[in-house]
Amino acid sequence: MISPEIKKRLFSLFPEDSATDSPEDLLCYGFDATGIESKPEMVLFPTNAEQISEVLRLANEQGFPVTARGAGSGFVGASVPVNHGVVISMTRMNSILSIDPENLTADVEPGVVTADLQKAVEERGFFYPPDPASLKISTIGGNVAMGAGGPRAVKYGVTRDYVLGMEVVLPTGEIVNIGAKTVKSVVGFDLTRLMIGSEGTLGVFTRLRLKLLPKPETVRTTLALFNTVDDSARTVSAIIRSGIIPRTLEFLDRSAINAVTDYMDAGLPTNAEAILLIETDGSEDIAEKELARIRDVCADHKVIETRVAENEEEREKLWTVRRSVSPSLLRIRPNKINEDVTVPRSKIPELMKRLSELSERSGVPIVNFGHAGDGNIHVNIMTDKRDEEEYTRAKGARDELFAICLELEGTISGEHGIGLKKAPYLESEIGPVGVALNRRIKAAFDPNNILNPGKVANCHEV
Amino acid sequence: MISPEIKKRLFSLFPEDSATDSPEDLLCYGFDATGIESKPEMVLFPTNAEQISEVLRLANEQGFPVTARGAGSGFVGASVPVNHGVVISMTRMNSILSIDPENLTADVEPGVVTADLQKAVEERGFFYPPDPASLKISTIGGNVAMGAGGPRAVKYGVTRDYVLGMEVVLPTGEIVNIGAKTVKSVVGFDLTRLMIGSEGTLGVFTRLRLKLLPKPETVRTTLALFNTVDDSARTVSAIIRSGIIPRTLEFLDRSAINAVTDYMDAGLPTNAEAILLIETDGSEDIAEKELARIRDVCADHKVIETRVAENEEEREKLWTVRRSVSPSLLRIRPNKINEDVTVPRSKIPELMKRLSELSERSGVPIVNFGHAGDGNIHVNIMTDKRDEEEYTRAKGARDELFAICLELEGTISGEHGIGLKKAPYLESEIGPVGVALNRRIKAAFDPNNILNPGKVANCHEV
Repeated sequence: MISPEIKKRLFSLFPEDSATDSPEDLLCYGFDATGIESKPEMVLFPTNAEQISEVLRLANEQGFPVTARGAGSGFVGASVPVNHGVVISMTRMNSILSIDPENLTADVEPGVVTADLQKAVEERGFFYPPDPASLKISTIGGNVAMGAGGPRAVKYGVTRDYVLGMEVVLPTGEIVNIGAKTVKSVVGFDLTRLMIGSEGTLGVFTRLRLKLLPKPETVRTTLALFNTVDDSARTVSAIIRSGIIPRTLEFLDRSAINAVTDYMDAGLPTNAEAILLIETDGSEDIAEKELARIRDVCADHKVIETRVAENEEEREKLWTVRRSVSPSLLRIRPNKINEDVTVPRSKIPELMKRLSELSERSGVPIVNFGHAGDGNIHVNIMTDKRDEEEYTRAKGARDELFAICLELEGTISGEHGIGLKKAPYLESEIGPVGVALNRRIKAAFDPNNILNPGKVANCHEV
Repeated sequence: MISPEIKKRLFSLFPEDSATDSPEDLLCYGFDATGIESKPEMVLFPTNAEQISEVLRLANEQGFPVTARGAGSGFVGASVPVNHGVVISMTRMNSILSIDPENLTADVEPGVVTADLQKAVEERGFFYPPDPASLKISTIGGNVAMGAGGPRAVKYGVTRDYVLGMEVVLPTGEIVNIGAKTVKSVVGFDLTRLMIGSEGTLGVFTRLRLKLLPKPETVRTTLALFNTVDDSARTVSAIIRSGIIPRTLEFLDRSAINAVTDYMDAGLPTNAEAILLIETDGSEDIAEKELARIRDVCADHKVIETRVAENEEEREKLWTVRRSVSPSLLRIRPNKINEDVTVPRSKIPELMKRLSELSERSGVPIVNFGHAGDGNIHVNIMTDKRDEEEYTRAKGARDELFAICLELEGTISGEHGIGLKKAPYLESEIGPVGVALNRRIKAAFDPNNILNPGKVANCHEV
């Protein structure tokens, strides 16, 4: 509990409209996309690093928890203040500070919405590839904290690959600059990459230096329909083996296709068991040449048909199929357990087979779609929480899913992170020694455990 | 000092031909490319992780230092056993364990020579881009420990960008697997990237999982001569701005050209003040198209001439100019202070101007060449150590060099690392808080400070 004295001090540090403890505000900053709720006692809206530094120094002195938060669009509860205390909303630090056309870098505040950054750099002929599905609401700071991915990762990598350096307020209150303005830098331990994906537990970012690329001249899009999952998976492997790495390589299984078909008229044939949505990019001729080669590979693997978008409108139409999966799911069951497991892409057919058996065995529908190019499949175990017996079966299926995934040399989270939701499974992947190392690193940064406590390896503290 | 009892125990752990304390062997494992010497008391040649684990457990129990070592080709003394003790040579763990064509990954032991890996994967149609200059002798394990770079980093990134996971023996003796087989994975802190560039102070790698790319179909090479450094630097910026990221973009200044011309008949005009060696790659038509575009950009920036390699032999000839700089330097002075500073590439003209003034002011020749595409310039301050007065001036020039580089938003090491040689300058870049964080992280991994002590942030311990 934050004492009235501490509240008073915090109110004195922030101008009137940038600190609140009104019940309705506290309600708004106590949950994320998981629906897990835990209200903070106060919400602050800083506009600079010094304010955050003062809050963290006070937190160390007085021993109250602080949790920084972007848009709250995360899927694992990482920004939910489980131990209450203060929430720092980063949404007012949302300036694009500079775009450097000579060095292909952008300096931004963490509260910039991902899509806004993408638009701003694209207007100047540059490209910021990471594209988590939430990009229209998620912030860059949140993306960095979670190590966000997205469909383009197969060719361009993830958020981790685009952060060169940052200004960060350490849990102990010091404001430090880490990393570099250059791709090359080997000066002490790689604190920048340690911050990326640390889920807000090692520091609060206040400025991020991002790497940009030249914007690809064009994008070509095709949708390919297959009779079997195996055909589609073999196509994925064959495309990569042919030396082409597509910009995106998205996958929908039969259950996902059904969900979309029930939801809208997508003009999809009823016999398709799998869909690949594939994009190439680069100069006009390269994107075209690669697309043609990919269609040949599809043909070699018994594709039912390939549809090619001839303009932006047609491209949007093809993407609508992929984007409609998530909203269409709630027609199957009111709740979903949505896990972003990742396996080596060669193991996708095996994963699909095992999931189909799992669905049958546990009697819950499982809908699969996601990023086949990098093996990151969003597995949706559909259930109704009000039906306690079914919900128990669904949760059991999740446990089995993680076990299957590790057996196939995969990882339990490709892009969502651990937070609260996957914390119980962390040790199954990284082992007790890994968990202990995580805790020692956390203690090295945050000796009083005041920053986003109770998350990742420290879930036992809740 | 290792006691005779400990030596006896270590000899008992290793077969006869894989442990030595003969004076001539100790001599061979006590230095690297810096020439700094500090002999170990024993050298071990493990063939598996369990042996290394046993050595580290014993080291914790008995309190002796252990330093793992690849080929010893490093430039900062990072593998020199300053506190003596045991050296673990990783050279016998040199198998390429598997190359996975479906998932584009390779599993290797750390003692594999970088060039051997490149050859092996290229024969199978794949590509491992990182190419430190030492690649014919350096090992992958050493590259990972130092976060090695190379000319291709401008397009393809550095070693850091190609390590997905590893098996590592922690300083406390536990054998753990960290990272993933997939590009996407956000499960706990990013221990893999923390290990990369940690200079052998956080663990001993025993297996590395590397990311591969499809091998580019072709490479095109051109050498461009300029009247001024400014013209060449503006060309670099203009190429990047035009949307092309070349495979390599190497730079030689006047002093480097002179050194090469004195050393060999390279057929270079006497009026060239700067050279760019530029390569494009990809499919035949793309590499050709980009090359043509680059030659146009050169022409727009008053290039004296561009020479294009029409076959592999001509390509080798053009590269000979670049590769001859280092060996030719010793004709200028018997010793060089070789620093791999990096600045944002837009700052290269300013850096060159400041270095020319510095050379004049301090009265020591400074020869500059390196990777202009990513701003990583190898600055060679030429001197004769026997001339004490000049050597002092040369060392003073190095201090000024680092200050200039930081002023230009650069980093004191792009690819060589800190080790012993740059340890006194570490704090000037990362600050006292950064140094303290480095030390706390080291302590979290290595509470008894037995693994490669006295390096990076812990140089005060020697």
